[in-house]
Amino acid sequence: MSGEQELGITESKEHSPGEWYAEVVQKAGLADYAPMGGFIVTRPRGYAIWERIQNNLDGWFKNTGVQNAYFPLFIPESYLEKEKDVVEGFDPEVAWVTHGGHDELEERLAVRPTSESIIAPFMAQWTRSHRDLPMRLNQWCSVVRWEATETKPFFRTKEFLWQEGHTAHADEDGAWEETMTRLDQYARLYEEVMAMPPLKGRKPPHDKFPGAHTTTTIETLMPDGKTVQAATSHYLGTSFGEAFDITYADADEEENTAHTTSWGLSWRAMGALIMTHSDDQGLVLPPALAPDQVVVVPIWQEDNKDEVIDYAADLAAELDEDGVRVELDDREHRNPGFKYNEHELHGVPLRVEIGPHEVEDGEATLVHRPDGETETVDRDGIADTVTDHLDTVHAKLYADAEETLEGEIREAESREEILGTIGQHGGYVKCGWCGDEDCEEPIKDAIAAEIVMVPLDRDEEPIHDDCAICGEDAEETAYFAKSY
Amino acid sequence: MSGEQELGITESKEHSPGEWYAEVVQKAGLADYAPMGGFIVTRPRGYAIWERIQNNLDGWFKNTGVQNAYFPLFIPESYLEKEKDVVEGFDPEVAWVTHGGHDELEERLAVRPTSESIIAPFMAQWTRSHRDLPMRLNQWCSVVRWEATETKPFFRTKEFLWQEGHTAHADEDGAWEETMTRLDQYARLYEEVMAMPPLKGRKPPHDKFPGAHTTTTIETLMPDGKTVQAATSHYLGTSFGEAFDITYADADEEENTAHTTSWGLSWRAMGALIMTHSDDQGLVLPPALAPDQVVVVPIWQEDNKDEVIDYAADLAAELDEDGVRVELDDREHRNPGFKYNEHELHGVPLRVEIGPHEVEDGEATLVHRPDGETETVDRDGIADTVTDHLDTVHAKLYADAEETLEGEIREAESREEILGTIGQHGGYVKCGWCGDEDCEEPIKDAIAAEIVMVPLDRDEEPIHDDCAICGEDAEETAYFAKSY
Ligand SMILES: [Zn+2]
Ligand SMILES: [Zn+2]
Repeated sequence: MSGEQELGITESKEHSPGEWYAEVVQKAGLADYAPMGGFIVTRPRGYAIWERIQNNLDGWFKNTGVQNAYFPLFIPESYLEKEKDVVEGFDPEVAWVTHGGHDELEERLAVRPTSESIIAPFMAQWTRSHRDLPMRLNQWCSVVRWEATETKPFFRTKEFLWQEGHTAHADEDGAWEETMTRLDQYARLYEEVMAMPPLKGRKPPHDKFPGAHTTTTIETLMPDGKTVQAATSHYLGTSFGEAFDITYADADEEENTAHTTSWGLSWRAMGALIMTHSDDQGLVLPPALAPDQVVVVPIWQEDNKDEVIDYAADLAAELDEDGVRVELDDREHRNPGFKYNEHELHGVPLRVEIGPHEVEDGEATLVHRPDGETETVDRDGIADTVTDHLDTVHAKLYADAEETLEGEIREAESREEILGTIGQHGGYVKCGWCGDEDCEEPIKDAIAAEIVMVPLDRDEEPIHDDCAICGEDAEETAYFAKSY
Repeated sequence: MSGEQELGITESKEHSPGEWYAEVVQKAGLADYAPMGGFIVTRPRGYAIWERIQNNLDGWFKNTGVQNAYFPLFIPESYLEKEKDVVEGFDPEVAWVTHGGHDELEERLAVRPTSESIIAPFMAQWTRSHRDLPMRLNQWCSVVRWEATETKPFFRTKEFLWQEGHTAHADEDGAWEETMTRLDQYARLYEEVMAMPPLKGRKPPHDKFPGAHTTTTIETLMPDGKTVQAATSHYLGTSFGEAFDITYADADEEENTAHTTSWGLSWRAMGALIMTHSDDQGLVLPPALAPDQVVVVPIWQEDNKDEVIDYAADLAAELDEDGVRVELDDREHRNPGFKYNEHELHGVPLRVEIGPHEVEDGEATLVHRPDGETETVDRDGIADTVTDHLDTVHAKLYADAEETLEGEIREAESREEILGTIGQHGGYVKCGWCGDEDCEEPIKDAIAAEIVMVPLDRDEEPIHDDCAICGEDAEETAYFAKSY
């Protein structure tokens, strides 16, 4: 690193969001491109964010009866084929292992694109009695899908990190409750940890996970007006239970088919996070996910160096003892301006500036990363004050994103209005919909916007009486949007 | 599960250790065999042990400057070839991905067998100045090595879980200190968490990691007299630095080559753990790794059912509040004998029995899993008492393993004596060694025992003046043993 030129973000979030995103990811040290197209290297600052997402979710999962397990990386072709029989339209583009050492394999092995087809047969084996249910398994792993698209770190990569939960239940009620529990936990992650307002909904029937009875989704809106499918939770009905013989003896010794669910969240969540909060100075992170929550920067002259640094070090130590993730930046070879820029680039939520004035007055100056708001506060009680300010930073990020979202859900009553509104503003357009996939086509063809969700509640009345496209009776409300 | 017959271990640890091990792993619910030879499914009870191993090590790593990262699952063939140039003898048997979707790839991709060849080029890119050093990266992941051997869960599998640490340092001192720090952390894991006495040593030069300057090892002795290489930490010198151009500008702006290390521990540690402590009743686990540390079993008659169960539930709740991982087993459809067997099979370190006598006298009966030792204790202060007993269980396991180890290190002064001693007793035989690989051959050929380590300290005097095999001057002490 040889200077500010190299350090700073040069692209504009507003005018070239794609280039800006790529620059933030690389210059903030989150990820680099791997030599093979479609793959990335997740650097420590990026991986630390993923670990915090994991820790939050994993704790909630475990508190609600989920157990982690680990299934093989490879799935025999015949197992994938079996899934094909079950679920129409399942034809994953996968990476195939054909050779082990110097020998060709008798049967090709797929690098897992998702693990239903290897997990379900084992669930069948482990599920004998109603006492074995509910069975709730989860694994944190990487999956590979050989899609030929341009690489966009965390959004579009051939290999990505995720968790996949797979559960079996005695009946529909249990399985539906499970589906909702996980959807709610994903929503909680977005709200409480990532400072992003989630929309909860169902995917339209033609866009369900193959074989699912119902696919529920968390959608989050990006600043460029596109939506991101930010997590999904599927109620699979008995389709997998029947196909893979996941049956159990009930209390009367009668054999029944289990109802299953699956649910997943990938590192795409990180992509949505970066895209939502960051700006032309670089990364912006909510305090819950920031590797460093606070940086303390002492600003000294030769004649007051020792006392300024001691004061700053003492303050940092107090924050550290209180459980705040804090860094003291007392590097000699960098000036304060350089340090400010660097920590802004890295997304440290709160900066504490300590100069001779702060030392003299027993104070500290706090600067919020998202908006530069500055406040000078008492040194006494600094840990509580800093914690309050971190909460404020989270609240600001959330409020900003919520305000954006609220202005970006519009209504339309005709095909032209849908096209015009999304064309001009982006965001979501809701309208009456007859339920026919054909009515999505003209919108998709014209502006590549789709029905990204319908309301979670099946009984909710459609907002308009008629389908905005064909004019037939509306069955539900469709949310059209462009999608990542 | 339909009864005690199916539940219990039928093989003998002493007489058929291989079959016994496989039975314990499956019946205790740790792992199942996957449909493809060489792969296993790690079930929740097994994965929970691995997670606790991870959590311990990961915390120590982070406290000593290590950052986690994630590198791609696949490595282009040309990258692996480059490593071949560097390190003589490196020719891994790997799984090759040749097709993505319906297309053949231009360049084959190896499923990572280890990640040096993909991590080193990035370290080179990120290392500019001495201020970037030390750089300490670690990843938790799975690796694949296509070795055609019989599957033995956690010991021999084509895919296995591990962590691989990779670090770069300005000089030999820094890199050597790193190598020792990680070796000591592995030793600590074995002692404090796994209740197993580790031997620390160096691999003989002919058995180093290819390209390494020094390979250090943790060896642990199994009850059948064979040793397990239980973790390794390599000082790589500048060989990888030179091959991959990991250089840095020092304080005088002079370009230098970094010294690197790598170090790893795999789920083989779990295999060694199971093999060491378990018995003909099933799994035995040290309290630090047990998913459930304590099971409370109420033993009631119809006329005292409520008070016995309430008393037991209250006691379990108190343990839980104190941070003990406790399960209350109040299942109606199982009798106490069945429950005892099941929890013994699963390796729960401590059983608390609560019958009408315990309720009447304000007591609780504690039973240690490893040896069945039973003590009736006061209900008051139960959390402290239980914690003490858990410590005692750990100490017992450690003392047993240590006693075994101490009796199993013998000396020999001739080839015949080495062969006879290992042939009769197994264990380690130490002897003078000239340092020539040729002197290992006759032992290897005759009884498949090898030099599994030499002392960590290069300056340590050999125990005998002469090499036990060729009679030339001894350079160091060799430890011969059969190995997993
Ligand atoms: Zn319509
Ligand atoms: Zn010799």
